[in-house]
Amino acid sequence: MGSQFLDAQEDMLLLIPGPTPVPGRVLRAGSRPMMNHRCPAFHELLQSCTSSLKDCFATSSEPLTLTASGTGGLEAAIVNTLSPGDRVLAVVTGAFGQRFAEIAETYGALVDRIEVTWGQAADPAVVEAKLAGGGYKALLCTLNETSTGVVNPVQAMAAAAKAAGALVLVDAISGLLATPCETDAWGLDVVVAGSQKAFMIPPGLTFVTMSEAAWEASKTAKMPRFYFDLPIARKTLAKGENPWTPAVSLLYGLRESLDMIAEEGLPNVFARHLRLRNGVRAGAAVLGFEALASDDVASPAVTSFLPPGGIEGDAFRKVLRGHYGLELAGGQGPLKGKIVRFGHLGYVHEAEVLKGISLMAAALAELGQAVDPAAAVAAARKAMA
Amino acid sequence: MGSQFLDAQEDMLLLIPGPTPVPGRVLRAGSRPMMNHRCPAFHELLQSCTSSLKDCFATSSEPLTLTASGTGGLEAAIVNTLSPGDRVLAVVTGAFGQRFAEIAETYGALVDRIEVTWGQAADPAVVEAKLAGGGYKALLCTLNETSTGVVNPVQAMAAAAKAAGALVLVDAISGLLATPCETDAWGLDVVVAGSQKAFMIPPGLTFVTMSEAAWEASKTAKMPRFYFDLPIARKTLAKGENPWTPAVSLLYGLRESLDMIAEEGLPNVFARHLRLRNGVRAGAAVLGFEALASDDVASPAVTSFLPPGGIEGDAFRKVLRGHYGLELAGGQGPLKGKIVRFGHLGYVHEAEVLKGISLMAAALAELGQAVDPAAAVAAARKAMA
Repeated sequence: MGSQFLDAQEDMLLLIPGPTPVPGRVLRAGSRPMMNHRCPAFHELLQSCTSSLKDCFATSSEPLTLTASGTGGLEAAIVNTLSPGDRVLAVVTGAFGQRFAEIAETYGALVDRIEVTWGQAADPAVVEAKLAGGGYKALLCTLNETSTGVVNPVQAMAAAAKAAGALVLVDAISGLLATPCETDAWGLDVVVAGSQKAFMIPPGLTFVTMSEAAWEASKTAKMPRFYFDLPIARKTLAKGENPWTPAVSLLYGLRESLDMIAEEGLPNVFARHLRLRNGVRAGAAVLGFEALASDDVASPAVTSFLPPGGIEGDAFRKVLRGHYGLELAGGQGPLKGKIVRFGHLGYVHEAEVLKGISLMAAALAELGQAVDPAAAVAAARKAMA
Repeated sequence: MGSQFLDAQEDMLLLIPGPTPVPGRVLRAGSRPMMNHRCPAFHELLQSCTSSLKDCFATSSEPLTLTASGTGGLEAAIVNTLSPGDRVLAVVTGAFGQRFAEIAETYGALVDRIEVTWGQAADPAVVEAKLAGGGYKALLCTLNETSTGVVNPVQAMAAAAKAAGALVLVDAISGLLATPCETDAWGLDVVVAGSQKAFMIPPGLTFVTMSEAAWEASKTAKMPRFYFDLPIARKTLAKGENPWTPAVSLLYGLRESLDMIAEEGLPNVFARHLRLRNGVRAGAAVLGFEALASDDVASPAVTSFLPPGGIEGDAFRKVLRGHYGLELAGGQGPLKGKIVRFGHLGYVHEAEVLKGISLMAAALAELGQAVDPAAAVAAARKAMA
């Protein structure tokens, strides 16, 4: 067959909210030869990664590393803490909030939803009032809604849930490391992250933290679980192993990316994501793009835009990909085809933002729009200064 | 942190039944930069892999590629075809047969077991007689029982199940490509394989085929499923996508390994595995190792041995690993600590078998056993000629 069709992808500038660009160091680490996943060196690998992950989640509990997409991590969060018939409150701010709620429903939870207009953040007061109705076993919420580019007020929602006696289950898949998430300090019971986001490694690993209250809930949770059984994962982690054969090459990459994150320092990682967000928004605004999210809730990980001049998002992306080698993401759900999503999380720096803005300007010009590329770049640079 | 503790692993001769050694071509392919998993080039990647996988499974249906360990594939097989309360018959010939049965039980199936002595193969006549009792919705069986090194008579068991009106669910995780598995011709309804076995890529992908009868069963199957929902996976595969973000780097590796398999030719792949099995058994016999499985059911993928002179398997492995850089696998369940398992599947050739036999001879001599390394190597070479 050959894989020549992949060659052109190697030169593509990839600015989507996952998979994010993987640093050369991490790609090379991931190409180490295989090892036995039941031997002392693997125990050291998994335990050292777990130790570093605690810093990333700001928790003293040991995050569990599962071989799955982030959606698998969300399923693990649900099935390890809940029973069929449990009432849960889901805060839905976009496609991924919907998904979290659907998983809970699939396994038999009774789900009430707070539906927030796509592009807006959840209002903690609304959440608090709804929780006060009582009887909720858990609150499901999203740290960074990838489909819209909005950061939700997880700390405030968690405080409301705690006061109402509900567990707090957080989808932090695209948010963790791009925006602060203080697992222990905020009282988050389950937090789920994914490898292909700000962790800068390929997709295939998901990380899940469990608070003591979540572990307690797991003892009586009756939804069926096997592959995603976290008490078994915790027990084998104590031996430095996973219950099932783990994605060894991705763990090699993880060890390297966790080193890079420690070298940069978490405060600098957060600051960089904010800078890039500001640069993308400023540059795109000059080009006439309309941001879906307002400044006060804008995501440091990804920004959604409507292109100027009535250009459809997917038509714009096709020109960007085909003529300029820039891959942006498209819309989901009601935004499908309409918007573009510019990912600025993970291994992305100022130069990638300026490249992205410049190529967007070029594509707009090709499509007949009047643009001032120099002004757009200057605005982006200023916002990132 | 650094990852210096991994460096010594790079020189380790890895002869375990998974993860198996990954060819350089595949490692390099897996280190390509990331791409969007929702773009035309990815569609081509997934569809071309799916087309090649059909040959590997000997099926005209399209195998589904899931991001998970093989155990996740087993869970997918169960939850997509069965409902709580369904009666199933599980043929248990070792640790992995046990696991398959446990997954079905976890999700509410009523499981009857045929327990076979570890190291022996299932007897189709016993299976047929038990199935004749009637009322079984499915038969669960294992093509290659990795914990013992035994190939089961799947074709005959499947025929018995078909006659009894039961679906045939096959764990072929470590068996596929190492030993024939004719999905369509044998009437297998669900067949599960794993990436880190004879497919020669790192762990993290599992492949699942579904017959028309299995798809029909999926329409009424009531076990809850979300991450492993195969009808959703089938629907998105028609667009060249996975429902959730797939392990992109492993798919790069898969494309390359499927090319290598096609270049070698499936008949040659099967013949090589048989040759290596014969070499391992002949060489180890000269050294005094006692094979757990008899010749007629011996696996082309992995061979289990009791070391000579009453040496415990794990003590022997520790010397092999620490002094000779050879990693063999240990025992599971009742065989834990006692046996060694020599993997000879995937990217393994005659030279690795001769290295393995030579290093086992050296370790035995160190442990005070009288050995004739030259005779052992000569026997292995003759058996592989």
